[in-house]
Amino acid sequence: MLSDIEISRAAKLKPITEIAEQLGIKAEDVIPYGRTKAKVPLNYLNEENIKKCNLILVTAITPNKAGVGKTVTSVATSLGLNYIGKKAAVALREPSLGPCFGMKGGAAGGGYSQVLPMEDINLHFTGDMHAITCANNMIAALLDNYQYNNRNTDKALDRIVWRRVLDVNDRSLRYMVSGLGGSANGIPQEMGFDITPASEIMALFCLSASVEDLQARIERIVLGYRGKEPFTVKDLGVAESIVVLLREAILPNLVQTTENTPAFIHGGPFANIAHGCNSILATKMAMSCNDYVVTESGFGSDLGAEKFLDIKCRISGLRPKATIIVVTTAALKLHGGVHADDIKKPNLDAMKAGLPNLQRHIENMKNFGQSVIVSFNKFHFDTEEEVSHLEQWCGSHGVAFAINNGFAEGGKGAAALAEKVVEVVEKKPSIDINFTYEDDDSLRTKIEKIAT
Amino acid sequence: MLSDIEISRAAKLKPITEIAEQLGIKAEDVIPYGRTKAKVPLNYLNEENIKKCNLILVTAITPNKAGVGKTVTSVATSLGLNYIGKKAAVALREPSLGPCFGMKGGAAGGGYSQVLPMEDINLHFTGDMHAITCANNMIAALLDNYQYNNRNTDKALDRIVWRRVLDVNDRSLRYMVSGLGGSANGIPQEMGFDITPASEIMALFCLSASVEDLQARIERIVLGYRGKEPFTVKDLGVAESIVVLLREAILPNLVQTTENTPAFIHGGPFANIAHGCNSILATKMAMSCNDYVVTESGFGSDLGAEKFLDIKCRISGLRPKATIIVVTTAALKLHGGVHADDIKKPNLDAMKAGLPNLQRHIENMKNFGQSVIVSFNKFHFDTEEEVSHLEQWCGSHGVAFAINNGFAEGGKGAAALAEKVVEVVEKKPSIDINFTYEDDDSLRTKIEKIAT
Amino acid sequence: MLSDIEISRAAKLKPITEIAEQLGIKAEDVIPYGRTKAKVPLNYLNEENIKKCNLILVTAITPNKAGVGKTVTSVATSLGLNYIGKKAAVALREPSLGPCFGMKGGAAGGGYSQVLPMEDINLHFTGDMHAITCANNMIAALLDNYQYNNRNTDKALDRIVWRRVLDVNDRSLRYMVSGLGGSANGIPQEMGFDITPASEIMALFCLSASVEDLQARIERIVLGYRGKEPFTVKDLGVAESIVVLLREAILPNLVQTTENTPAFIHGGPFANIAHGCNSILATKMAMSCNDYVVTESGFGSDLGAEKFLDIKCRISGLRPKATIIVVTTAALKLHGGVHADDIKKPNLDAMKAGLPNLQRHIENMKNFGQSVIVSFNKFHFDTEEEVSHLEQWCGSHGVAFAINNGFAEGGKGAAALAEKVVEVVEKKPSIDINFTYEDDDSLRTKIEKIAT
Amino acid sequence: MLSDIEISRAAKLKPITEIAEQLGIKAEDVIPYGRTKAKVPLNYLNEENIKKCNLILVTAITPNKAGVGKTVTSVATSLGLNYIGKKAAVALREPSLGPCFGMKGGAAGGGYSQVLPMEDINLHFTGDMHAITCANNMIAALLDNYQYNNRNTDKALDRIVWRRVLDVNDRSLRYMVSGLGGSANGIPQEMGFDITPASEIMALFCLSASVEDLQARIERIVLGYRGKEPFTVKDLGVAESIVVLLREAILPNLVQTTENTPAFIHGGPFANIAHGCNSILATKMAMSCNDYVVTESGFGSDLGAEKFLDIKCRISGLRPKATIIVVTTAALKLHGGVHADDIKKPNLDAMKAGLPNLQRHIENMKNFGQSVIVSFNKFHFDTEEEVSHLEQWCGSHGVAFAINNGFAEGGKGAAALAEKVVEVVEKKPSIDINFTYEDDDSLRTKIEKIAT
Repeated sequence: MLSDIEISRAAKLKPITEIAEQLGIKAEDVIPYGRTKAKVPLNYLNEENIKKCNLILVTAITPNKAGVGKTVTSVATSLGLNYIGKKAAVALREPSLGPCFGMKGGAAGGGYSQVLPMEDINLHFTGDMHAITCANNMIAALLDNYQYNNRNTDKALDRIVWRRVLDVNDRSLRYMVSGLGGSANGIPQEMGFDITPASEIMALFCLSASVEDLQARIERIVLGYRGKEPFTVKDLGVAESIVVLLREAILPNLVQTTENTPAFIHGGPFANIAHGCNSILATKMAMSCNDYVVTESGFGSDLGAEKFLDIKCRISGLRPKATIIVVTTAALKLHGGVHADDIKKPNLDAMKAGLPNLQRHIENMKNFGQSVIVSFNKFHFDTEEEVSHLEQWCGSHGVAFAINNGFAEGGKGAAALAEKVVEVVEKKPSIDINFTYEDDDSLRTKIEKIAT
Repeated sequence: MLSDIEISRAAKLKPITEIAEQLGIKAEDVIPYGRTKAKVPLNYLNEENIKKCNLILVTAITPNKAGVGKTVTSVATSLGLNYIGKKAAVALREPSLGPCFGMKGGAAGGGYSQVLPMEDINLHFTGDMHAITCANNMIAALLDNYQYNNRNTDKALDRIVWRRVLDVNDRSLRYMVSGLGGSANGIPQEMGFDITPASEIMALFCLSASVEDLQARIERIVLGYRGKEPFTVKDLGVAESIVVLLREAILPNLVQTTENTPAFIHGGPFANIAHGCNSILATKMAMSCNDYVVTESGFGSDLGAEKFLDIKCRISGLRPKATIIVVTTAALKLHGGVHADDIKKPNLDAMKAGLPNLQRHIENMKNFGQSVIVSFNKFHFDTEEEVSHLEQWCGSHGVAFAINNGFAEGGKGAAALAEKVVEVVEKKPSIDINFTYEDDDSLRTKIEKIAT
Repeated sequence: MLSDIEISRAAKLKPITEIAEQLGIKAEDVIPYGRTKAKVPLNYLNEENIKKCNLILVTAITPNKAGVGKTVTSVATSLGLNYIGKKAAVALREPSLGPCFGMKGGAAGGGYSQVLPMEDINLHFTGDMHAITCANNMIAALLDNYQYNNRNTDKALDRIVWRRVLDVNDRSLRYMVSGLGGSANGIPQEMGFDITPASEIMALFCLSASVEDLQARIERIVLGYRGKEPFTVKDLGVAESIVVLLREAILPNLVQTTENTPAFIHGGPFANIAHGCNSILATKMAMSCNDYVVTESGFGSDLGAEKFLDIKCRISGLRPKATIIVVTTAALKLHGGVHADDIKKPNLDAMKAGLPNLQRHIENMKNFGQSVIVSFNKFHFDTEEEVSHLEQWCGSHGVAFAINNGFAEGGKGAAALAEKVVEVVEKKPSIDINFTYEDDDSLRTKIEKIAT
Repeated sequence: MLSDIEISRAAKLKPITEIAEQLGIKAEDVIPYGRTKAKVPLNYLNEENIKKCNLILVTAITPNKAGVGKTVTSVATSLGLNYIGKKAAVALREPSLGPCFGMKGGAAGGGYSQVLPMEDINLHFTGDMHAITCANNMIAALLDNYQYNNRNTDKALDRIVWRRVLDVNDRSLRYMVSGLGGSANGIPQEMGFDITPASEIMALFCLSASVEDLQARIERIVLGYRGKEPFTVKDLGVAESIVVLLREAILPNLVQTTENTPAFIHGGPFANIAHGCNSILATKMAMSCNDYVVTESGFGSDLGAEKFLDIKCRISGLRPKATIIVVTTAALKLHGGVHADDIKKPNLDAMKAGLPNLQRHIENMKNFGQSVIVSFNKFHFDTEEEVSHLEQWCGSHGVAFAINNGFAEGGKGAAALAEKVVEVVEKKPSIDINFTYEDDDSLRTKIEKIAT
């Protein structure tokens, strides 16, 4: 089989305006970035369509070194849905250049279930990461300036909590001292850089419902403290200027898959430090012009899907009709205690030993009220015995099961999965979400409820 | 008269593909960034046309607080040339977001001699600054990683001279200590950030003749020393990856003026720290598809034009046919000893007292072998007496003189200046350049020759 | 009653040579520091006498804001013993200048139970702290030099654990970056200063049995690591020079009390970070020329006395014949839950509520095999009811009890306590120590045994 | 011949009380530090005697790698004077432990012209350096505390100029950042350590006329600035406490020479950064009880003697009766252009070529009004030809000349030099000083006058 990069380069991409027009977005309305990437203006958001559209969430068992192929499954599901005649799109996070640099592909699906142009998406893409980096650091510079001009007055902050960001993996920037070399270089202080996906700007960018909402969220950012009194971007008086830096970045990005179906890739907060899913605006834009939208959350169901449901869905009003949990025999065997070197060897007992992990994730999602489909990402080393056991196990636990072969075959290979998705959505969809905590719970209560 | 921003917003921009097609660049070949910005592929470079095209350099007397309007004059000259029927474009630097942020306009001309879309150009534009920032800092991160992995071996550098950059004005980042917080955060070291236009990447980006040349120049960057032995990007082995980060940025940007004539805006090194003019590739691209190209150098003739001629022209083989020196009565009066508050008051004597400065810049340019045109940027407070004295003075010093009213009237107001340019180019153009120093002079000799 | 400082200044001090001669130390053998302080040469150590001498340990209930007067009790006990005709001395820690600075007295006893000259003892004394500071920092400088000369070779340490010290309270020196300003100023590194009593030099200085032992202990100090391999002062090759810096400091200091009886004050490690008692050499020197020696350990019995017994006694072979636990009604009431403002008010119930604390400390000492005497430090606000309850309580718990009025009356006031001490020592002395842990227990086991 | 350390150890030292008594200082009045060092109380200062006493200054030609033996000459002169029956003492700086550490001797004279006990003097001595270090750093700690308690108020200093000191050679402490690790560790700031002899405390300690004057000088120390307003130790309110730390240190130290004659060694500011001579109090104490006192200034006459005369003499009223300029053939040859490896070879021409340096120093001293004696430090490799040429040259330049063989022979070897000194003092002594500048000259004028 061809490598990801070979498949990527062999793919014949359509002009992005053509993809847009299939979605009912006029060519002259999109903002092109080259010929195969574009931003879509927010006036194409359509609340009627959003309500009607079927949102499918993709999550997974606890991730381990084996990997499970969550992004591949998300892309494949959208391809499968198109393959069986549904109007479907995928909505994904945009990758950070930092960890991607030097690797070929990885954050854009794989095999015949990729989003393209892969290299652009993995590097500068449409500049969103740069704009967020720039906005974050401009606030820092303006805050430093504020401190400098107000030093040794009671206007000065006693403590600064705002950090800078760069979209690069650079351990030496985590903890630094700046402002050295005399007072012309500012005030000595401890500071540091995070990677851009960990910026608070990134998190609120992804949770904004509109440009106005973005500005309101930026205004509420706490930059530091005077005594115990917080000091916000609003207090600094620069929110409007910062929003100017983000006015194009906030528009959802449209690209296409290996089978020329639409893909919305927008916003990329890390799941460990933020909520870890793509922007609300991009998900809604995808739903505005499709009947099915497949989207992905970070890590396993306990972390990423929890945040997707408790945070993104709560804020946006979105309600997935079904949740796909991705598994592989390799990942189950690893949970089952097999050494990482042996996970490609047939071992039914080890797989069985790993099933409690899957069971727990199924229960998690059921507790949220989700209809669950277990999607099995098939590899060449899986035995029929293993697969059929897994299928029976799912049957006996009352959850749908489907084999996904989208990596090797694209939409055709994901047709069975797509059929299962449609079946669940039509016959017993998830209706609402049982949130883990209430919006007005205390911070401590929220944490306890999530942890237990 | 309307403000710059009002004129900018009132302007009716054509699709950038239309501008490209006027230049013989096919719509499907340009890489659009939105509807009014585009990058032009390098295969449109045409050495035949470059040789035939008339390059006009714009410089100025010693800049002071009064300003003289060098960018306005550059844009206006191209408008004037088009107005009198010539096929002309302007080639300018792209501004840095850092100093521009918070100001409305300024680095994109002014009045009816602007390049548009002004706000985009002043902010993220086509992402070139971000790509250069990213390339610069990726080298720094990879170098830090190299140092970390080779610490306490003889492979480690003793001294690092490579700095990071951010496109922001931030004094507190000039001098820092990084790598604090224990060895998981790298090795403590002194470092700092410059503004992106001061990056060595920016300088060599603007001097590159091709992508291959860009890579070769990146490979030669000295990052630090082991003993006295320099250690380059080539030694680090990452040049190819870094070029990938710059492969779109290196393509010249095409935009348009307030009168829909083409403008190439690409590369923006500072003139104080680097050579201070736009990229060779953009100038050559403009010359590949125009009969006249007007371009600008930084500060006064002694600094910016010297670097343009001695560095950019030497490397690229470009030879301007004429040099415009921009003056205003206000700037002359300020040189003549008048207080800054009084420069808008008529004062013939003060203006006369400032003329030695102009004279020196004329001589500078003549020493280089340049045919000189003095362009007088007219303001409402100038008296007829002052203007006519200046004109006579130029006549008596054997240099051409023209009034430029492009700010208030666009191309029409610059027609007289354009006529004068054509006259000089056709009748007594500059032929070659008397370089200040030889390429193989020692560093010390070069500095002495420039200084004397 | 006079203040501490008034009593101190009114005291008539004898020449220190006279005090020495009373102890059998020839005047020409002592090394005077002024007229009332001296160092005693080590040849006066006498193992025969040490074995015969009765060592009395002073500890206390858990210290709280009320204070209990442990140093006052130690001095008073020695005064009382002399008062009733015994040949007795006290052996104490020397105070750190850091926390003492700006306070009048405090670390040298109080009232009529002080060691003198108080101000000298609290400031530079005989220079021991300075010598230790100097030795500590000289090692640091030589190590820095080693690192500088071996930078970027495999001789360089990967990690340095040796810190500098100053005998000053200075929070801003705890965590620093040094070596800035270019390579002429060394290698940037994270470092910091502790207060001198926290220096490892101080700890091993106090545990040394001789100058040779001091050198051997200094050689074993771990300065840092190459990989996982420790690098010691011996590896640095400077131990002999460092010992030269300490050759006078290591000699025990002799001063006198308010009643001109001998006091040995030498070594001052903090009890929280080190073992918290005076030097073995000073205790042994005091025991070489007295029949009774009273010495003090830090904090409460669980911390300071534990370390005295498990560390100092184990290493030195010393075995106290009895342990005095100091209490006050105020401290008991505070343990009993009374607010700090009310501890001077009669409150029998609160005092009773605090007795479990005393009980626990008695048990601690009994577990070590110690014969215990509870010494009650009397204050004017104590009621007879409270005191007699305490006495009965001690009786019913089978421990000796005595009232100590040494603060107000000196040796006469401590006579009853001294009598009780003699009674215990003669009738049912402690014999040996039940150590909490074995010398060859693992670090983890030692910690567990101490904690439980 | 024996080494310095062998001579030092072979010397039979008298009890320091005996030395004191020879000077009329009662044994019970001196403050002993061990048996051979003592401090002398200030009530022994005697202005009558000071006026009568003959002060002899020792300086040298420009110092180079060859060394000239200025301290040896100072000690030898005092020995010679005693040898020929005069009551004489030497007054020297006390050495810094930093540069001395690890070397055997060097800062205490050499050969048979040493001050003793050499090792003590070179290490902790009587603790003066430690007390000064302590006082300096206590101010720093109190200032940090002030800044911490007044942060973000207009009481906080904008700029701190006070540095810390340690008596150690440690390049990595020159430039640091302190206060890291969060606000519990103070405020991040740039700071650094100098070596103790460079402390301003050391400089003013040496210039103080009394304890009261010391306190007044400490109060005037500028610690930093609020805006342009200086902030002093007086403003900090801690001068009295700091003086307490110095109250013993300020007393002159008395030791003895290899021939048991008195030596006052007190105060040790560096000559490059401060005025470079011993304390005024020690010089005056020596003069209070001797007829001749020999003292030394740093570096050559242009630097050290200039400061001695313009600063120390101006402030104290002291007036040397004669100045000895020390030369060697080796140093002259080195000035004459010979390579350092060849200075021990006979070379009359090279010596002659170095004489202009001597001439210039003679003129310097004559300009101050000083009667000059050239003292020739004889080495075994000197030829008679060289020595006799030098003697004639001095004769022809009208200055006294003597050979000093004190290194090899002690007082006997310096008898000729002593005779010459007595002759000059009795026949044509220096009377007053022609100061280089006036006390009320501006700082700029003072610098110009010294430089020209």
